[in-house]
Amino acid sequence: MSFSVAVAGASGYAGGEVLRLLLSHPDAEIGALTGGSNAGTPLGTLQPHLVPLADRVLEETTPDTLAGHDVVFLGLPHGQSAEIAAALPDDVVVIDCGADYRLTDPAAWERFYGGPHAGAWPYGLPELPGQRDHLRGATRIAVPGCYPTVSTLTLAPAVAAGIVDPDVVVVAASGTSGAGKAAKPHLLGSEVMGNASAYGVGGVHRHTPEITQNLSGLTDTPVRVSFTPVLVPMPRGILATCSAPLSGGGPHLPADDAYAVYEKAYAAEPFVHLLPQGTWPQTKSVVGSNAVHVQVTVDEAAGRLVAVGAVDNLAKGTGGAAVQCMNLALGLDEGTGLSAVGLAP
Amino acid sequence: MSFSVAVAGASGYAGGEVLRLLLSHPDAEIGALTGGSNAGTPLGTLQPHLVPLADRVLEETTPDTLAGHDVVFLGLPHGQSAEIAAALPDDVVVIDCGADYRLTDPAAWERFYGGPHAGAWPYGLPELPGQRDHLRGATRIAVPGCYPTVSTLTLAPAVAAGIVDPDVVVVAASGTSGAGKAAKPHLLGSEVMGNASAYGVGGVHRHTPEITQNLSGLTDTPVRVSFTPVLVPMPRGILATCSAPLSGGGPHLPADDAYAVYEKAYAAEPFVHLLPQGTWPQTKSVVGSNAVHVQVTVDEAAGRLVAVGAVDNLAKGTGGAAVQCMNLALGLDEGTGLSAVGLAP
Amino acid sequence: MSFSVAVAGASGYAGGEVLRLLLSHPDAEIGALTGGSNAGTPLGTLQPHLVPLADRVLEETTPDTLAGHDVVFLGLPHGQSAEIAAALPDDVVVIDCGADYRLTDPAAWERFYGGPHAGAWPYGLPELPGQRDHLRGATRIAVPGCYPTVSTLTLAPAVAAGIVDPDVVVVAASGTSGAGKAAKPHLLGSEVMGNASAYGVGGVHRHTPEITQNLSGLTDTPVRVSFTPVLVPMPRGILATCSAPLSGGGPHLPADDAYAVYEKAYAAEPFVHLLPQGTWPQTKSVVGSNAVHVQVTVDEAAGRLVAVGAVDNLAKGTGGAAVQCMNLALGLDEGTGLSAVGLAP
Amino acid sequence: MSFSVAVAGASGYAGGEVLRLLLSHPDAEIGALTGGSNAGTPLGTLQPHLVPLADRVLEETTPDTLAGHDVVFLGLPHGQSAEIAAALPDDVVVIDCGADYRLTDPAAWERFYGGPHAGAWPYGLPELPGQRDHLRGATRIAVPGCYPTVSTLTLAPAVAAGIVDPDVVVVAASGTSGAGKAAKPHLLGSEVMGNASAYGVGGVHRHTPEITQNLSGLTDTPVRVSFTPVLVPMPRGILATCSAPLSGGGPHLPADDAYAVYEKAYAAEPFVHLLPQGTWPQTKSVVGSNAVHVQVTVDEAAGRLVAVGAVDNLAKGTGGAAVQCMNLALGLDEGTGLSAVGLAP
Repeated sequence: MSFSVAVAGASGYAGGEVLRLLLSHPDAEIGALTGGSNAGTPLGTLQPHLVPLADRVLEETTPDTLAGHDVVFLGLPHGQSAEIAAALPDDVVVIDCGADYRLTDPAAWERFYGGPHAGAWPYGLPELPGQRDHLRGATRIAVPGCYPTVSTLTLAPAVAAGIVDPDVVVVAASGTSGAGKAAKPHLLGSEVMGNASAYGVGGVHRHTPEITQNLSGLTDTPVRVSFTPVLVPMPRGILATCSAPLSGGGPHLPADDAYAVYEKAYAAEPFVHLLPQGTWPQTKSVVGSNAVHVQVTVDEAAGRLVAVGAVDNLAKGTGGAAVQCMNLALGLDEGTGLSAVGLAP
Repeated sequence: MSFSVAVAGASGYAGGEVLRLLLSHPDAEIGALTGGSNAGTPLGTLQPHLVPLADRVLEETTPDTLAGHDVVFLGLPHGQSAEIAAALPDDVVVIDCGADYRLTDPAAWERFYGGPHAGAWPYGLPELPGQRDHLRGATRIAVPGCYPTVSTLTLAPAVAAGIVDPDVVVVAASGTSGAGKAAKPHLLGSEVMGNASAYGVGGVHRHTPEITQNLSGLTDTPVRVSFTPVLVPMPRGILATCSAPLSGGGPHLPADDAYAVYEKAYAAEPFVHLLPQGTWPQTKSVVGSNAVHVQVTVDEAAGRLVAVGAVDNLAKGTGGAAVQCMNLALGLDEGTGLSAVGLAP
Repeated sequence: MSFSVAVAGASGYAGGEVLRLLLSHPDAEIGALTGGSNAGTPLGTLQPHLVPLADRVLEETTPDTLAGHDVVFLGLPHGQSAEIAAALPDDVVVIDCGADYRLTDPAAWERFYGGPHAGAWPYGLPELPGQRDHLRGATRIAVPGCYPTVSTLTLAPAVAAGIVDPDVVVVAASGTSGAGKAAKPHLLGSEVMGNASAYGVGGVHRHTPEITQNLSGLTDTPVRVSFTPVLVPMPRGILATCSAPLSGGGPHLPADDAYAVYEKAYAAEPFVHLLPQGTWPQTKSVVGSNAVHVQVTVDEAAGRLVAVGAVDNLAKGTGGAAVQCMNLALGLDEGTGLSAVGLAP
Repeated sequence: MSFSVAVAGASGYAGGEVLRLLLSHPDAEIGALTGGSNAGTPLGTLQPHLVPLADRVLEETTPDTLAGHDVVFLGLPHGQSAEIAAALPDDVVVIDCGADYRLTDPAAWERFYGGPHAGAWPYGLPELPGQRDHLRGATRIAVPGCYPTVSTLTLAPAVAAGIVDPDVVVVAASGTSGAGKAAKPHLLGSEVMGNASAYGVGGVHRHTPEITQNLSGLTDTPVRVSFTPVLVPMPRGILATCSAPLSGGGPHLPADDAYAVYEKAYAAEPFVHLLPQGTWPQTKSVVGSNAVHVQVTVDEAAGRLVAVGAVDNLAKGTGGAAVQCMNLALGLDEGTGLSAVGLAP
C-alpha cells in the first residue's frame, strides 16, 4: 500500500526528522514540502543530509499546497496548527508535531501557552495503557512533547502500580535540538559547548502540565510533578532522572520488585526497552532510533524509587513518534520504517 | 611571605589543577612534584598546559620526596593518603584532595569505600556556617568532594533555615574530569561525546554520605538525600539541580522569601554568588574559577523549593578549594591566587 | 537470498558498525559474534545500542567459531587477520576491516606497519575507476582505511584528469572513533572535548602509503602525498581538506571546469555526492550513512585546486564500505541495507 | 601606575575577553563599557562569567561615552572603528580588535572587505621581527586576526630563514567563537556539535590577505598562501596545520635543522612556546592563555616542511594580544596581567 505524505515545516528539526524517517519507509511517497520563511529554497541548502530530496524546493505553508495527500505532518511553531488543520479534509491523516492539541485542560493551556485552546486530539503515545486503540485509524493525532514522552514512560509503571506516592521529581538533561532551529544567542555552539545550564526552573516549563496530565491519568490521585530541564552539550537526546517516594512512606520495596513491575509493563512494547538490571540508560544508545531505554531501582535510605529513561528527542521524542502514529492511523505495522537500533558511538 | 609547596599526584587532574592555580599564587614556591607510575617523566609530557613547569621531572610519591616543604597537597587515589600523611611532620600543612579524611562516621566510610577508616580532618568547605574558623591555622585539611561542594552550598541555606523538610533530591550533571585521568573505555571521548548517562543511581555513589553529613550538620533532624549523578559531554563543571518539599508540607513560601534566605546566607561569601532573581546558573560561567553560582525559587504547584548550583569540579570543586584552604591554613587572605571570574565562552 | 554472517571483533567500533548495518540488511542472518578479551560477555553490555543482539554472548575469535558462515567480517587489530583468514575456506567471503591486506608494496607495509607483509586483497573502494569489477564475486576483500577513503575520493577526479600536479596536501580533521575503543589517556573525553590536536605529522601516519598507492594508480607519475591528521572533538566523521598545484604551474583552470571534471567522475556513483557549487561538505550530513560529500574549487591566487570531502569514518569509512563490498561479492544490489541519508542535527 | 580603560563592544566575545583579562591586570581601572543593541543592559546578563562587573550597565557606543579614558578598546563589527577612532584624542591609546586597520594594501582591503580603506595602524603582533619596537608607545594599534596570528607565527621562522619556497598551505581548524556572538542558524549548537565543516574555501576568507601580508614582509619574494578554515566543535582554539615545499625543491633539510631555526627564532619570546621535539600542539594547552604552541618537522617523502601551531582565538588571538599591545603602548611589562598557562583539561 503506497500513500502520499506532505510535510509542513520541512526546514525545521521536527520536519527534517520526519523526512529522514520517511525516506526509509517502504510505502511513503513524499509529496509537498513547505516552510515558512524558507519557501522557495531548495531543501538541499537547509537539510543537506537529506540527499535524495536535495532538489525539492520548499513551498509556502498553506492548505492548498498541503491538500491532496493522504497524510500531512505539521512541524509548525506552537499555535499555528489549528488553522491549517481545520482547512484539511477530515479523512486526511493530520499528525501535529506541535503542542496545540496535546493538553485536554484549557486552563492548563492558557496558563502555560497563552491564547485560546485549540482542543485535544488523540495523544500519540501508544505505550500508555489503552492508548494504542485510540490511535488505530485516527485521522488527527497530537505527537507528545519530547520531555513528556521520556518522563511519562520512565515513571508510568510505578505510578500505575501504585508503588510510589503521586509526588514525582523529574530532572531531565537534554540536547539542544529540542529548542529548535531558530537562531538565538544562548543556543550558539560557542555558548552551549562545555556548558550545562538549567532553564524553566520551578514548574514553569510548558511540558510540565503534559507530564502531569499523562501521569495523573494512570491513577486516582492527581500527581504532583516537579520538573526541571537542563540543557547539556549534545545535539540530540534526553536523559530523564525521575524519582518519587515509595508509597506509604514506610513499607520496604525490594528493587527486584520494582524491576518486576516495569518488566511486566513493557514486556510487549516494541520500542520501550527495559535494560538488564544494573545497566543504566545512556542517550547514545537510542540516538537516531525510536527506542526508549529505561532502568529502575530503589534507594532504601532515601525512601525513593529512582528510574532513568533515555530517548532521542527528535526521533521517538518527535519524528519517530509521528511516523509510529502514522503507521497506526493507516493500519500498517506500527514499526514500519522505524528502528530500535541507535547510532553509537 | 613565601612558602614552599609539594604536590603528590601531579600528573592527575586534581594535582594539575592545584599547580595551575599555584602558578598564579604570588607567594607559593613550587617544590617537589610526584606521580605514581609517571615518576621519571617530565611534567611537560603529562600536563602540557603548565608551560612554566614543563621541564620538571616527576619523582616517586614517598614521604622523603615530599618532606621539607611548608605545604603538601595530596592528589592520590582513595586510600593512599593516610600512610603518606602520617609520615609528614605535624607542622606541615597537609591538604588531602582525596576522600580519606572527609567522613566522620566510620560506618559510612566502610559502607561506601570499604577498608578501615583513616579518620576525619577539618573539612575544607569554609562556606559552611562556622567552618572557616576550623580551617584557619589548621595543618590537616580534607578537601570536599566535587558533588558535595556544590550540592551542599546549593541546599545549605534552605536546610539551615528550616524552610524545607529534611528530604532532599539532588540530580547533578557533571563533566567527565571528575572521573579522573585513568583510561577506562566508558570515559573515552567517542563514548561520552553526544551522550548523557546516569551512573551510581539509587544512593550508591560515594559522595552520598558526604552530602548527607554536611546537610545533617545544619539541622536537628537527619537529612535524607537522594543523589543521582549524570555524566554529560563536557570536560569540566557540575550543575546540581536540588529540591526539597517546603517545610510542613503546607504553608506557602513566596519565592522572594526563599531568595532572601539565600541572600542573607551568602552576602559575605567571596566565592558564592547568588545570581539576580530569574537568572539560572550555567557551568560555563564558573569554569576555571573558584566561584559557585546559585539560584533558588519555589514551585508552588509541586510544593517544593528548587535550587540550582554550578561549580567547576576541578577548581572550586577540588584544586581551588585546596588553595583556598591552604590560604586559610597559612593565615593568608583566603582568595589569594584565586579568581571568581570564569572562562567563557 | 538469505545468507549467514559472522563478525570477529564484534565488541569494537568496526564490528559494532558492521552489525548496526547488518541489522537493517534484509537478507543477512547474523551468526557467530566473537571478541578478544570480551569473549563470554553479552553484547548488550558492550554495544547497548544494538538492542536486538543484546543477549548474544561473544565467543572466542577462532577459525572454528567463525566457520560455517557464508560471510565473515574481520574487525581485528592490525596483524591478526592473516592467520584467521588462512584457516577459512576459499569460498567463504572474508572481508577484512583491518589494514593487513590493503597495501600492495611489501616495503611500504614494513616501513609503516612493521612485520611481514600478509599480501594484498582486492581493494574495497568500488568508486575507484575499474575497481568495482574486481569486487564482484570476490571472496577476499580489504576494506580501505577511513582517511584513504575520503582523501582518495576527494582528489581522484583531479588526479586522474591530470588537472593537478602529482603533489597533494591533505589535512584531515577526524572524530575520535577512528582511534578505536582501546582506552588510552589521550583519548579520554576530558582530553578530547574542547581540543584539536595534530598527530602523526610529517608523513608518518600509516594511512599515508595507502593514499599514495590509490592516487598513484590513477596517473602515470607517482603522486607525492603530504598527509596530516587532526583529532577534533566529535565521535564520528572526517573532513578532508585537499589541495594540489594546478598542473603545469601556469595555465588558468576555471573553477567551473574543475567542477565539471568531478561531476563527470561521480555522475553514476550512488554514494559519492558532489554538492551544488558553493556548498561545502560537513561531516554531520553524512554521519551514519554510506555517503561521501565532495566539493571542489580553484584558488587562482594560490595556483591550487582545493577539494573537500566528508565521510563517516565508521560507516562509509569502515562498516558501510564492508557491507557495500559484501553486497558486490554476493552479487546483490550494491546499496542493499545502506543509506545515503545522514543523521542530522 | 594606574590607568583607566573603556571597552566598546563589551557584550561581544572580543570585548568580554578583554574584560576578563583586564580583571586580573593589576593597574587597569575599568571605566565605560558600551554595546550596540545591548546598551542599557547590565553586563551580568550578557557576560555572566564576569562576576565583578555584573552590575555595570552598558552605555551606547559613542565618542562621548568612551572619552576621558587612557585606553580605549574597540571590539566592533568591521567597518565601525574608523569613525569612533577619529573622534578620540591622539594621545588616547586606541586598540582596535577589528579588521579596519590591519591591511596596508587598499586594493586587498577592497577585494576582501569592500568599502573604503580606513588605513593601517601599527600591527599588533610583537613577535614579528622588529615589530615590538613599533608598538612601544604607540597610540593606535590594530590587533591581528586570529587565524593570521597563529598561521604567521607557525610559518614565520621558516619563511624568514628561506628554508621553504614562498608557497604555503594553511588548513586551520577553529572553534566557533571566532564567528562572534551574532546568532546565525549554522552556528547553533545543534548544528556545530558533532560536525566539522569547511568554509571560505578557495582563497576567499578575509584573513587570507593578512596572512599573505605578514609572510611576504619576511622575505623578498611575495608569498602565495592557500588558506582553508575549518569549523570544528569547540568554543575556543585554532589549530593551524601549515606546510610549504622545502626550498629549492631538492636539497635535503634534516628535521633537526628546521627545529633549530624555530628554536632560535622564538628563544626569547615570552608567549611563543616551541614544544619539545616529537610533541605536537593541542589547543587545550593554550585555552584561556596568551601562549602560542608550535612544532615543526620535515616530511622527506613529500618534500615539505610541516609546522603546526595552536592558539586561543579569543585570548592571544584577540583579547590577549590586545592587552599585550596595551602593555607595550603604556610602557608596562609586556606580560602584565597575562598568563602562558592554559586551562586543561
